[in-house]
Amino acid sequence: MTPADPERAFSPNPGVRAPRSQRRATEKPIDLGRIACVTGGRVDGDCAFIVTALSSLEKAGADSLSFYAGPKRAAKLKTSGAGAVMLKAEHAGLFPGHKVIVEDPYAAYARASALFAPPPGGIHPGGIHPSAVIAAGASLHADVTVGPYSVIGDNSRLEQGVVVGSHVSVGGDCVLGRHTVVEPGVCIYPRTVIGRRCRLASGAVIGASGFGYAPTGGQADGGGAWLRIEQLGGVVIGDDVDIGAHTAIDRGALDDTVIGNGVKLDNHIQIAHNVRVGDHTIMAGCVAIAGSTVIGARCQLGGRASILGHLQIADDVRVNAGSFVARSITEAGVYSSMIPALPAARWRNIAANLRRLDRLAEKVKKLRGDKPT
Amino acid sequence: MTPADPERAFSPNPGVRAPRSQRRATEKPIDLGRIACVTGGRVDGDCAFIVTALSSLEKAGADSLSFYAGPKRAAKLKTSGAGAVMLKAEHAGLFPGHKVIVEDPYAAYARASALFAPPPGGIHPGGIHPSAVIAAGASLHADVTVGPYSVIGDNSRLEQGVVVGSHVSVGGDCVLGRHTVVEPGVCIYPRTVIGRRCRLASGAVIGASGFGYAPTGGQADGGGAWLRIEQLGGVVIGDDVDIGAHTAIDRGALDDTVIGNGVKLDNHIQIAHNVRVGDHTIMAGCVAIAGSTVIGARCQLGGRASILGHLQIADDVRVNAGSFVARSITEAGVYSSMIPALPAARWRNIAANLRRLDRLAEKVKKLRGDKPT
Amino acid sequence: MTPADPERAFSPNPGVRAPRSQRRATEKPIDLGRIACVTGGRVDGDCAFIVTALSSLEKAGADSLSFYAGPKRAAKLKTSGAGAVMLKAEHAGLFPGHKVIVEDPYAAYARASALFAPPPGGIHPGGIHPSAVIAAGASLHADVTVGPYSVIGDNSRLEQGVVVGSHVSVGGDCVLGRHTVVEPGVCIYPRTVIGRRCRLASGAVIGASGFGYAPTGGQADGGGAWLRIEQLGGVVIGDDVDIGAHTAIDRGALDDTVIGNGVKLDNHIQIAHNVRVGDHTIMAGCVAIAGSTVIGARCQLGGRASILGHLQIADDVRVNAGSFVARSITEAGVYSSMIPALPAARWRNIAANLRRLDRLAEKVKKLRGDKPT
Repeated sequence: MTPADPERAFSPNPGVRAPRSQRRATEKPIDLGRIACVTGGRVDGDCAFIVTALSSLEKAGADSLSFYAGPKRAAKLKTSGAGAVMLKAEHAGLFPGHKVIVEDPYAAYARASALFAPPPGGIHPGGIHPSAVIAAGASLHADVTVGPYSVIGDNSRLEQGVVVGSHVSVGGDCVLGRHTVVEPGVCIYPRTVIGRRCRLASGAVIGASGFGYAPTGGQADGGGAWLRIEQLGGVVIGDDVDIGAHTAIDRGALDDTVIGNGVKLDNHIQIAHNVRVGDHTIMAGCVAIAGSTVIGARCQLGGRASILGHLQIADDVRVNAGSFVARSITEAGVYSSMIPALPAARWRNIAANLRRLDRLAEKVKKLRGDKPT
Repeated sequence: MTPADPERAFSPNPGVRAPRSQRRATEKPIDLGRIACVTGGRVDGDCAFIVTALSSLEKAGADSLSFYAGPKRAAKLKTSGAGAVMLKAEHAGLFPGHKVIVEDPYAAYARASALFAPPPGGIHPGGIHPSAVIAAGASLHADVTVGPYSVIGDNSRLEQGVVVGSHVSVGGDCVLGRHTVVEPGVCIYPRTVIGRRCRLASGAVIGASGFGYAPTGGQADGGGAWLRIEQLGGVVIGDDVDIGAHTAIDRGALDDTVIGNGVKLDNHIQIAHNVRVGDHTIMAGCVAIAGSTVIGARCQLGGRASILGHLQIADDVRVNAGSFVARSITEAGVYSSMIPALPAARWRNIAANLRRLDRLAEKVKKLRGDKPT
Repeated sequence: MTPADPERAFSPNPGVRAPRSQRRATEKPIDLGRIACVTGGRVDGDCAFIVTALSSLEKAGADSLSFYAGPKRAAKLKTSGAGAVMLKAEHAGLFPGHKVIVEDPYAAYARASALFAPPPGGIHPGGIHPSAVIAAGASLHADVTVGPYSVIGDNSRLEQGVVVGSHVSVGGDCVLGRHTVVEPGVCIYPRTVIGRRCRLASGAVIGASGFGYAPTGGQADGGGAWLRIEQLGGVVIGDDVDIGAHTAIDRGALDDTVIGNGVKLDNHIQIAHNVRVGDHTIMAGCVAIAGSTVIGARCQLGGRASILGHLQIADDVRVNAGSFVARSITEAGVYSSMIPALPAARWRNIAANLRRLDRLAEKVKKLRGDKPT
C-alpha cells in the first residue's frame, strides 16, 4: 500500500522560485467595492479593503480574496487565512473577515479572476512590432497589437483591440473580430473568419487541409494510390470561442467548417472538415470529431470522447470521457462507453471472457432452451 | 427529443463574411474542355462553358461545376442549380445542363479540385524572403520559395519547386524533394529526408527524439531515475506523402523511421521511433503507432486507432476507428475493438456486469456441468 | 495471407540518401577506453580501437560499436559485423572482436549514445542570434545560446548552458535552469519555471490556460453560455524532465501545475491544470491527465492511457496502454482496461452481445434461481 503522498513524491527545483512580476490586467489597486461591482454582489465588511491576489482558501493570505462554494469546503473556510471571501448570504456567518455576498460564488470567482489576470499579448506591450510582416492589402485597426515575427496575409482584416502574439501566421483573406486574442505560435490558414472576443492558445492550427482522398483504383505505383482532393472551403468561427493548445480545425472540402458562438475547446482537439459545432458546446481535452458531423448546441463532450463522421448529434447531449459515438444521437441525454481500469490480472480474465462473449451467450441460450437464431 | 437543427444551433458571425480573393492555382478561366482534359472525360455540352467554382450539388450556382457520384444524391441532382456536372455516362439523362462524362465522378472531383485551389506558399509570392535564414552550406534550387522567418540548416538540400511557408525550421542535413510543400510553422529536425510532391501541414514535427530510456536501477535521486538514450537515427519519407497538422514522426534510435510512398497521414498522428509504414497506407486523425512496429502497404487505420510497439501488420489490413491492436496481424482483413456509446444509465449496468464477466462465465459453466478449468 | 514484407512494402526515395554530416557531441575520435569510461565497464580488446558509429548488431560495420542485451539476440551477435560490442562478462565468449564488459549493456548503450549525438541547438552554433528579441529585463547567463527569431520575455532568467532553438517564445517571469535545451518552435508562457538539464521538443506548449469555465445559468445569448475563469497559476517543472513534441502542460487555476524531477513525457501528452506528477514518472505518447489529478512517483503510463480529474494515483502504479482510469488508485500495481482488436466480423458479434450483457446476466440469474436484485 503506497498512497500518493504529494509531499514525498515531488521535489522539483528546491529553492527555485519564479520572480513573479505584479503586472495585472488592471493597474489600479483592487478593493472589495470593485469586486462587488464585477460580481454583482454586495460587501459585508470594508468596501475599501484592498486585495492583491485571488487564492484558494488553503493558500490565501491576509491580502487575498478567496471564495466559498459549498459545504464540502467548510473545514477549509474555517481555517483559511483569507482577507476576504466571496460567498452566499446563507454562509455569511461561517467567516469572520470581510465578505462579498454573491448569488453564485463560483461564477463570482470567474468574474473576479479577470481582474487578476495579466493583460494578453505576451512580451510586446502594444502596437505593431517592427519585425511583423504585414501584407500591403491587409487592413488593421489602429488599436491592434501584433507581436514580433508575426505575419499577416493579404486582404486580411484585424478589428479593434485584436492582440496577436509572436510567431503567429495569419493567411490571406482572414478576419479577426474585435478583441480576439491570438497567442504565440498559432497558425491561421487563408480564408478563416474568427469572431469577437475569441482566444486561441499556442499551437492551435485553424484551416489546415481537410483529409480527403479519392482511391485511384489504378495500378500505378504498385496499386492503392490515393488522389488528394483539394479542400476549397474555409473555417468560420463565432464570437466568444476559446481554442486550446494544439487544437486543429480543418477547413471544409467545398463549404466551410463552422464553430458556433461561445464554443469552448480544450487542448489537443481534432475537428475535421465540414464539421459544424453548435453554440455554447464545450469539449474537454483530446476530443475528436470526424468529418461532416453536426453537433448541436450546449453539448458537453468529456475528455477523449470521439464522434464518427457524417453523424448528427442533438442539442444538449453529453458524452462521457473516453466514449465513442458511432451513431447519430437524436435525444438529449448522457451517453457513454467508457470502461474503467481494473487491476491487470483481473482485467485479463475479463478480457479473455469478453473475447468469447458470443459463445457464452449461445450457451445460455441453449440452457434456456431458446431456439437458435 | 431535440433533433439537431443546424439552422437553430449555429449563429456565428452574422453579417461577417470573409472577402474571398479569387486567387487560384490557375489564373486562366477554366472551361469544360479543361475539365475534361484533367479528368480524362468528355464534354456533353459546351466545351467553352466557363466554370468559376467547384461546389456541392446543393450550393452550386449557374457558374459552378459539381459532380454526381450516385443514386443517394439523385434528389440533389434534380434540384441543383449547377451550371455543369461531372457524372457517369449512364446518368447523363438525369441532368439537363452541361455535363462532363467521366468514369469515376469522385476521382474526377479530386482531379478537378486542383484547378480551383489557391497556389501553395501562403502570403509570400515566391523566392527567398529576405528574412529567411539560410545556412551557408545549404543548397537551394533557383526555383524555390522560402517564406518569412524560416530557417534552413547547413548541408540541407531543397530541390526544384519546393515551397516553404513562414516560421518553418529545417535542420541540417535534410533533403526536401521536388515540389514538396511545407506549410507555416512546421519543424523538421536534422537528418530528415522527404521525397517529392509531399505536403506537410502546420504544426507537423518531423524527426523529434524517439522516446527511449534505460532504467538506472540505482538509488540516485530517490530511485527510479531513467537514463536518456540519444536517438541517432533519422526519418526517411517517400514521395507523395501528406502529413497533417500536429502529426509527429520521431527519428529512429539507431536506424531510421521510414514512411513509404503515397502514405497519407491526417492530423494529430503519433508515429514513434523505428516505425516503418508501407506504401499507400492511410491513417485518419489521432492514430498512434508505438515504437518499432512495421505496418504493411495499403493499410487503412480509422481515427484514434492505436497499434502497440514491436508488432508486424500485414498489407491491406484495415483497423476500425477507436480500436486497439495489441498483437501482430498476419492476414489482410478488417479488425476492430471499438465499443459504441449507449445511454449512460444503460451503459452503467453493462459496465458493472462487464466487471464481473469472469464470474458470470463461471456460473454458466457450473450450470452446464462443465468441469472447472 | 499477406504477411508484412518490409522489403516489399516500402519504396521511399530510391537513391535519395541524406548526406550525413559527421558533427557529433564530441569532436574527438571515440576509442574503447572512452566507452569504458562513460559506461563504467572495462575493455576486453584494444583500448585504442576507434569507433565511429553506434549501431544495432545487424547494421554494425567494422568501425561500429554495438551492444548485446541477451539471449534473444544471440543469433544476431553471431553474425554481426560490429567492430566492438558492449556485453556482460558471462557473454564475452560469444563474440570474437573487441569487447567492453559492462554490468548492464542496455544502460551502457544509453550512456554511450550521448557521445554519438550531435550537439543540441540546431543550426545556430552558439551565442545570441542577432535576430533574437530579448526583453530588457531578461537575465541571460553569458554561456547561453538563443537561435534565430526567438523571443525572451521580461524578467526571465536563462541560466548557464541553456540552449534555445529557433522560433521559441519564452514569456515573462520564466526560469530556464542550467543546461536545459528548448528545441525549435516551443511556446513557454509567462510564469513558467523549468529546472536543470530538461529537454523540450518542438511543438511543446507549457503554461497555456487551464480549461476552466463557470456556467452562467443565464439566458443571455440563447442560454448555456460559459464564463471563462482566468488561470492565474503557473507551471513548475523539476530537473531532468524531458517533454515530447506537441505535449501541453497547462498552467494552474490558482496554484501551479507541478512536474517532478526526472519525469519523462513522450509526444502528444495532455497535462491539465493543477495536475501534479511525482518524480521519475514516465508517460508514453498520447497520455491525458485531467485537471487536479495527483500522480505519484515512479509511475508508468502506457500510450493513450487516460486519467480522469481530481484523482489520486499512488506511487509505483503502472497503467497499461489504452486504459482509462476513472477512480483513485491507492495501491501500487498494474491496471488495465484495454480491449485488443479482433477480426471485425467476430467483434461485431461480441459487441452486440456486450450491448445486452445486463440481460444475459439476468437470464443466468433466473437459470440459477437467484433472487432478483
